[in-house]
Amino acid sequence: MCQIYNDYIPLQKLPTASTLSKTGLMKKIVIAPDSFKGSLTSLQVAQAIEEGIHMTLPSAHVIKIPVADGGEGTMHTLIDALHGIYTTCKVYNPLMREITAEYGIIKNSDSYTAIIDMASASGLTLLTEKEKNPLITSTYGTGQLIADAYARGCRHFIIGIGGSATNDAGKGMLEALGCRFLDANGHPLTQGGESLNLLSHIDISGVKASLLRSDFTIICDVNNPLYGESGAAHIFASQKGASFAAIEILDKGLRRFAFCIKKQFGIDIAHTPGAGAAGGMGAAFTTFFNATLKSGIKTILKILDFEKRITGADLIITGEGKIDKQTLMGKLSQGVLFAAQKKSIPVIALGGTIEDRKLLTDAGFLGVFCIQSSAIPLSQAMQPEITAENLKQTTSQIIRLISFNHLIP
Amino acid sequence: MCQIYNDYIPLQKLPTASTLSKTGLMKKIVIAPDSFKGSLTSLQVAQAIEEGIHMTLPSAHVIKIPVADGGEGTMHTLIDALHGIYTTCKVYNPLMREITAEYGIIKNSDSYTAIIDMASASGLTLLTEKEKNPLITSTYGTGQLIADAYARGCRHFIIGIGGSATNDAGKGMLEALGCRFLDANGHPLTQGGESLNLLSHIDISGVKASLLRSDFTIICDVNNPLYGESGAAHIFASQKGASFAAIEILDKGLRRFAFCIKKQFGIDIAHTPGAGAAGGMGAAFTTFFNATLKSGIKTILKILDFEKRITGADLIITGEGKIDKQTLMGKLSQGVLFAAQKKSIPVIALGGTIEDRKLLTDAGFLGVFCIQSSAIPLSQAMQPEITAENLKQTTSQIIRLISFNHLIP
Repeated sequence: MCQIYNDYIPLQKLPTASTLSKTGLMKKIVIAPDSFKGSLTSLQVAQAIEEGIHMTLPSAHVIKIPVADGGEGTMHTLIDALHGIYTTCKVYNPLMREITAEYGIIKNSDSYTAIIDMASASGLTLLTEKEKNPLITSTYGTGQLIADAYARGCRHFIIGIGGSATNDAGKGMLEALGCRFLDANGHPLTQGGESLNLLSHIDISGVKASLLRSDFTIICDVNNPLYGESGAAHIFASQKGASFAAIEILDKGLRRFAFCIKKQFGIDIAHTPGAGAAGGMGAAFTTFFNATLKSGIKTILKILDFEKRITGADLIITGEGKIDKQTLMGKLSQGVLFAAQKKSIPVIALGGTIEDRKLLTDAGFLGVFCIQSSAIPLSQAMQPEITAENLKQTTSQIIRLISFNHLIP
Repeated sequence: MCQIYNDYIPLQKLPTASTLSKTGLMKKIVIAPDSFKGSLTSLQVAQAIEEGIHMTLPSAHVIKIPVADGGEGTMHTLIDALHGIYTTCKVYNPLMREITAEYGIIKNSDSYTAIIDMASASGLTLLTEKEKNPLITSTYGTGQLIADAYARGCRHFIIGIGGSATNDAGKGMLEALGCRFLDANGHPLTQGGESLNLLSHIDISGVKASLLRSDFTIICDVNNPLYGESGAAHIFASQKGASFAAIEILDKGLRRFAFCIKKQFGIDIAHTPGAGAAGGMGAAFTTFFNATLKSGIKTILKILDFEKRITGADLIITGEGKIDKQTLMGKLSQGVLFAAQKKSIPVIALGGTIEDRKLLTDAGFLGVFCIQSSAIPLSQAMQPEITAENLKQTTSQIIRLISFNHLIP
C-alpha cells in the first residue's frame, strides 16, 4: 500500500513516550488497586499498571500502594506495607483439627501490634464443601492466634474477620482465651453455633485482665445485628453451609447468647451494628474486649497512612475485578476516591467488568475504564497474563490521553 | 455503609458533564468511523459515539462523517454523503441470471456522476457457496449498470470494484458495452474467465466513443498485476471458488488477454499495478477507458472533501470492528489519521478488538481503545445494541480524560 500512500507524509507525530516524558508532567502517580480476584493479587495489579504508565511516561514517579478491602488477604497487605514479620503457630481449624496458621507482628516504637486474619484459622476456605457446617464449626483457632500473639507481647490487635466458616458468636475464640461456656448443669458446651442454645452461664474469670484491656481493632465491612432477619445466621449462614433448618437453630443460639450477656453483664447487644459480623464474632469482641469495629477500607487506608502518602500526587489509579454501583457501597475504590477527593487528586478506576459508569463518574471518578482488549470468554480474560497485559495496555493509553493537552504545541 | 462513611464528605467533585461543557473546550469534534462489520453501519457507529461525546460535553459541536474503506457498502456511503439519488436497473448476475441492482447518481453543476458498486451486479455475495466458480462467472451486469448510467446522461463514473465474484478481466462488462471477444474462428466467446484462453480478437468498434472518453474513477485497494504468482488468479481466485487447477486455467486466460491487447493495441498491461484487481477488471478499465485506479480510502476521503471538513477540529474519533497492524496497511482509520496529521488534529481510534497498540500509537494515534465493558463472547458483544452502548460509554470516558487537564483549578 505504501505506493498508494507515499504522498502522505505525516507532518506532525502525536505524543510518543519520549515527548510525553519530556513534558515533566504526571510527576507523581499513585497506584492503589484491589486484587482482581481469581486472576491477580493487588500487588500484581499494581505492577502491571506501573508498566503501563512507564510505557508512556518512562520518567513518571510511581508509588504502588496495593490495598485490600478488609476481606481475606487484607492482613498480608498490611503486614507487607508496614514491614511486619510473619509468624506461625499451631491452631485448631473450624472442625478442631490442628493446622499451622500464619499471622503478623509489627513492632511499634513502644509496643507490638498483632495483625491477624481470622480466616487463616477459622476460614471457610479451610473446609471442603461438605465439611461446611456452622452448627459445629468453631472460632477456637482464632482465639489461639490471639493467645499466641499476647504471649509474644502484643497488646494491640488488628483483626480482619472476613471469610469465617463459623456462627458461634466467638464462643470458641473466647474459650481459647480462658472463658468457659456452661449449660444449666454447669457442664461446658461443645464447639459450634448449635451449642449456644444450651448456654446458661458465661465464666470469664479465666481470661487475663491485661488481654481484656488490650486494644483491639476489628476490621469488618458489615453492619448486621447479631440475630433476627438481618442477623448473622439469616444473612450469612447459608453461604457457610447451613440449611434453612440450621439457620433457625443458629439464630436461636445467637438470641440465647445475647440473652445471657444481658442477664449476666447488663449489656444489650441486640441492636449493636456489626455484632452479627463473622457469625457473631463482632458481638464477642464488642462485649468482652476493648474493641472497636471499623470499616475495612477506611481503616486499612488509615493504617497505611494513605492520605499522607498520596499528598502531591497528580493522579491516582485504582481498580478491582468488577466496578459498578456496589463499588460505591464501601469497596476499596470508593475509599481511595474519598481520600483522593480530600486532596483534589483525580482518580481513574480500571476494572475487568464495568457497569453503572454514570453513577461512578457522578460520584467523582475522573474516568472508569474496562481493561478488556477484545470480546473473549471470562475464563480466558481472567488468565493472569492476559489480565496483566490488558491492565498495562489500557493504562498506557489512558496516560496518553491525560497528558495530551500539554503536548499540542 | 453510609453510617461508616458519613464523616467522608468529598471536598471537591471531579469533572461532571456540566463543568466540562462550561470549559468551552473541544468545540469541534469530528466522528469518522468505518462500520463495525456484522454489528453496526458506520452511520450507527457515528451516532453512538456522538451520544457518548454529548454525555460529557453537551455543547460540543460534533460533525459526523461516516466513511467506508472502499469495500462493499462504500458506494452507499458516498451516495448518502453527496446526496445522490438511488436508481435501480435489471442486470445479469455473475451467472447471467437477471436481478435488480442498485446504483447512485449525483448531479454536479454541469454533469452527472454515477456511483456504482461492482458487487451489486457482479458480487460474490450474489452467489451461493457452490455457485462460486470464476471459470464461468461474468462481469456482464456491471457493464449493464454502466450502460444504464450512460443512457441517463452520466459522463463521470466512480466505481468500487471490491467483492467481485469474477476473474474474466472485465470481458463481460466490455461485452455489455458493445465490445466483442472472438475466437480464432471469429465466434464470440462464452461468459467467464476460462473462455479467455480461446481469445483471438477483440472488437471494440461497437463501444460508444463518448463512453470511452468518459471519466472513470476506479476505487481499488490492491496493486496486484494482471497475471503471474501475484496476479488476480493466484491471489484472489480461490476465495472466489476456484480450485488449484482452475486457478492455472484462469491465469493462462489472463495472460492470453494481455497478449491479445499487446498485439492488437500495442498496450503492455503485464506489469500495470492494479490490473489484477477484481479478476482483471483493473486491466479492462485502464486499457479501454479513460480510467484511473485510486486507493479506496484516500479517494473516498477526497470525494467526501474530508480534509476541508475537519479543518479546525479539536479531535477526530475514528474506529472499526478490529484495529491492529492491518489498520496501518491502508484501512480507513489510517486514512483518517493521515488526513488529520496534515492538520495536527489528534485522532483516537475505537475498536471492538484491539491489537498492536504500540505500533498504532507510534504511527500517530493519540489513543486506541477497546469498547468492551466486560469479558463476553464475541457473538454477544456484536449485538448492535451492546456495541452501540459500549461505543457511547467508552467515548464518554475518553472525552472526560481529554478534557480533564483544563478542569483542575
